[in-house]
Amino acid sequence: MRLLITGGAGFVGGRLARALLAQGSLAGSRIERLVLADQVAAPPWLLADARVEGRVGTLLAQVDALREEPFDGVFHLASAVSGECELDFDLGMSSNLDSTRALLDALRWRVQQRGAVPARLVFASSIAVFGPDPAYPFAALVGDDTLPTPQTSYGTQKLVCEQLIADYTRKGFVDGRAARLVTVTVRPGRPNGAASSFFSGIIREPLAGHAAALPVDPSVSHPVASVHLMVSSLIAVYEASRTAFVGRTAMTLPGLNVTVQQMLDALERVAGPEVRARVVPERDERIAGIVANWPRGVVARRAAALGLAPESSFDEIIARYIADCRDPVLGDPAALKGMA
Amino acid sequence: MRLLITGGAGFVGGRLARALLAQGSLAGSRIERLVLADQVAAPPWLLADARVEGRVGTLLAQVDALREEPFDGVFHLASAVSGECELDFDLGMSSNLDSTRALLDALRWRVQQRGAVPARLVFASSIAVFGPDPAYPFAALVGDDTLPTPQTSYGTQKLVCEQLIADYTRKGFVDGRAARLVTVTVRPGRPNGAASSFFSGIIREPLAGHAAALPVDPSVSHPVASVHLMVSSLIAVYEASRTAFVGRTAMTLPGLNVTVQQMLDALERVAGPEVRARVVPERDERIAGIVANWPRGVVARRAAALGLAPESSFDEIIARYIADCRDPVLGDPAALKGMA
Repeated sequence: MRLLITGGAGFVGGRLARALLAQGSLAGSRIERLVLADQVAAPPWLLADARVEGRVGTLLAQVDALREEPFDGVFHLASAVSGECELDFDLGMSSNLDSTRALLDALRWRVQQRGAVPARLVFASSIAVFGPDPAYPFAALVGDDTLPTPQTSYGTQKLVCEQLIADYTRKGFVDGRAARLVTVTVRPGRPNGAASSFFSGIIREPLAGHAAALPVDPSVSHPVASVHLMVSSLIAVYEASRTAFVGRTAMTLPGLNVTVQQMLDALERVAGPEVRARVVPERDERIAGIVANWPRGVVARRAAALGLAPESSFDEIIARYIADCRDPVLGDPAALKGMA
Repeated sequence: MRLLITGGAGFVGGRLARALLAQGSLAGSRIERLVLADQVAAPPWLLADARVEGRVGTLLAQVDALREEPFDGVFHLASAVSGECELDFDLGMSSNLDSTRALLDALRWRVQQRGAVPARLVFASSIAVFGPDPAYPFAALVGDDTLPTPQTSYGTQKLVCEQLIADYTRKGFVDGRAARLVTVTVRPGRPNGAASSFFSGIIREPLAGHAAALPVDPSVSHPVASVHLMVSSLIAVYEASRTAFVGRTAMTLPGLNVTVQQMLDALERVAGPEVRARVVPERDERIAGIVANWPRGVVARRAAALGLAPESSFDEIIARYIADCRDPVLGDPAALKGMA
């Protein structure tokens, strides 16, 4: 089979590619070809695999060429992120909405003009589709039955794409599924400007021997998952039968609903009190205000019916990150130099 | 003030124009100019008013010219209808989604490039945004808190536009409000191919002396309203304060939740048993199947907070239609030739 991952050179996309190459098949078919489309080049450890082809450029610029290619499946992860979309409205509309529609139309074209079987499409949506709804206090937990009332351009664009994918699926143009990702921790790399950056920073930085500012109250609760769980969930959503979606196409993926305090306690258990002590309370009203409007947790009942479950503890999420840092290919031993 | 009605030559648009011209002002400002944009020419009785300007052409073809015009307010009613959108996917995407986005961007352009005050925009959405949700039995009544799971391209496009308008509003590009219209009865004119056509046909045709087929069981329930109520509701939504929307932009308009049996009983009360007897049961499985998936009624709590209420009986809706038929400008005496 021939697969496409948009955003295939990114953090989640690269890990997904690696998992797919390792398992060698998907939904019972052998993976012959894996195209990674991204604005940046895919890492050499992916391009070294003979099945992999990297393509560099915006998705909009690449999408016309996709018409004639017989892709059996697509993981559509390419996206401008939340902060970018708030700063540059046109960028968000182009990168997230126009690109998705162009991709959908390329897949539709093959069905309508070439009689192709509809490609299976997994779209990486986000719990950013959820409010808060100013008309009501935020539900304690959000899930598949929560009314989405996005309050960011990013969340709006994700929700709009979910709806378009549902309609293209109903019409038989694609076999689409939208998976709403929770916040992925622990992300490697440097802190960035995203308001959610600290959810990774308060673990990653102390493990590397650096201090980390905690901008919110430790009682803040949020749904999180490791990149491993998100990758295996995306694969499970791809492999699920159409009927498992019971007529809907969007599904909230599992997350561990955890407070910052519980995250810090886990860090102390896993890495010791000296590491934990590198997290310094430094309240940031702007970030605290943004985070106050985020879901405090998810209930992923429909994902549970697919056998998907959150990690059982934040200790497990930290352990997975530490194992990644020690990985001979992906790893970075310096990322653990703060550990005894 | 300067107003634009897209779809201004249509059934609802023309009535809205008439009502606005009659009241002379809107939200406290005098109406100086009323532009009616539509694919067909506005009727002479509207164009005769010196304040009215008619423009003929698709909205997409007209929208660039709108950039430089200082519209204070827009009623955006232009739309391809449900049946058309199912038959011609591209037409629906272009007429309903692309046109709305182009209109929003024209209004945004004035704000960003000319420093204009954001135009107030009322968007005619539809209860077609509601399911049924195949994952759950249809809720008895739908409303502002019901999870929209559209099962038509038309409903999807309306929902997507609602979400875009919400985001453009949040960003300060427009002051947008989306009003979800229920089924308007009694529509004048000829029966058409729409599955909802019989909701008007079983009243209009017998009153005109013609037989009318009833394609569904009399126990079918549906929310309906007169065009008068929809017009006054659209005006009320325009005039409502921003805070009345409590952070949301979409609002379900009121409808009378009525069974077909109750409609027929009202017809008999208003026009007599001979007229009622012209309705002949003639089950149509295709139409019955479509209608079975429609909402059985609405609860319009947020509209109620604006003082909007459904008609109190279907008798009142029929009486309004009869009065319209006798209207010296809009009317058609032949439409009542079946009445004793």
